[in-house]
Amino acid sequence: MGEQTNPWECINGKNIPTTIELDPIIYKYTSPACRILDIGCGSGKASNLLASLGFSVTGVDINTEALRMAKSSSESQNCLQIPLFIRTDARALPFPDAAFNVVIMQAFLTTIVSKDDRARIIREACRVLEPGGYLYLADFGQTWHSKVYRERYINDLPVTKEEGSIVAYDEGTEEIAYVAHHFTEKELVFLLIDNGFEIEFFKRDEFVTRTGNRVNGFIIVATKL
Amino acid sequence: MGEQTNPWECINGKNIPTTIELDPIIYKYTSPACRILDIGCGSGKASNLLASLGFSVTGVDINTEALRMAKSSSESQNCLQIPLFIRTDARALPFPDAAFNVVIMQAFLTTIVSKDDRARIIREACRVLEPGGYLYLADFGQTWHSKVYRERYINDLPVTKEEGSIVAYDEGTEEIAYVAHHFTEKELVFLLIDNGFEIEFFKRDEFVTRTGNRVNGFIIVATKL
Repeated sequence: MGEQTNPWECINGKNIPTTIELDPIIYKYTSPACRILDIGCGSGKASNLLASLGFSVTGVDINTEALRMAKSSSESQNCLQIPLFIRTDARALPFPDAAFNVVIMQAFLTTIVSKDDRARIIREACRVLEPGGYLYLADFGQTWHSKVYRERYINDLPVTKEEGSIVAYDEGTEEIAYVAHHFTEKELVFLLIDNGFEIEFFKRDEFVTRTGNRVNGFIIVATKL
Repeated sequence: MGEQTNPWECINGKNIPTTIELDPIIYKYTSPACRILDIGCGSGKASNLLASLGFSVTGVDINTEALRMAKSSSESQNCLQIPLFIRTDARALPFPDAAFNVVIMQAFLTTIVSKDDRARIIREACRVLEPGGYLYLADFGQTWHSKVYRERYINDLPVTKEEGSIVAYDEGTEEIAYVAHHFTEKELVFLLIDNGFEIEFFKRDEFVTRTGNRVNGFIIVATKL
């Protein structure tokens, strides 16, 4: 099918920004005075876009180098707002309850190997949102119809111990570079509804990676209950 | 979310034709002289459409009343070809090997409760196809983001014993009218590749039922190996 392996580009904030673009549906859930938190902002593509539109944006990531790139690129743009970039762990955010109106999380959960950590991250996103606030979540879906991904899910299972996860190896050392998880619809839905949200908008999409692979994706807007 | 339950309309060929329309992708895999078999043709909507376009079509179903409707509606149309409607069991088709160029199967597997029967049906579809022939398959996907379906999957599990299946009850007698299964991508993909096919085309779609519910769906074209 002409597919290439290793389409990930922004795991743990390393390397190049992800190819997932912000879906315009987000603008239905934002207003001009909105305070937006971008969890796992990586090199700041979405944060800087939203800041350039005048939103008040805070981007957080655990990766110092990614944050340096995010700051540098915000300085080179003429943003209406200057985003605030903070190094922190998404499992324990340094913000008070209800500090934000909207949280965005793009291709971030895919990098979190532990199911418990995923739940903690969603609960933290919920805590820092105002009641009725929105979580915009875009992430990868399991792509069983693709021979390349199907074989990776099966072959990598002994290492990842989780169906739908794949391993990327360092080309030089052949050591594990990172593990990424692709979600089922059921997984993402229960991750949200078990941790304080209800589903407001749900779209099955297809993301095209830099190497031209087509991967299932989900775009979800969830409301804090 | 304003959703209604009981969206199915054509289980075991009863009642009204299904709301799933033929995706135009099918015309990429058909040629004028094509012999098409419509397995689980119900009241013949797809069979009659394809016959009206000049294809040689055979429709099979186990339900006599549905076949009567199919014949009646083909007679009232001015079809270029008259489809042949035959009552038969899809697990044991009365056709020789390689008798058809294309098999279509729309919202049919959803009605098959037994996993073994689903596999037998796909193997039969494979047998009656010429090598390199195409199976066009459209069916329902598990729709976890919908509260209505999520709750039905969970509540009906003790009865159906299969995740993703739902029970429809007769409104008068409150007895079980039918069980329908919604598939995961993984289920459908392995059902095909384990029984003689490879995936040629794959699309995640959304079907809207007569009552306005939105249900995940898959449209797949698979090639006989």
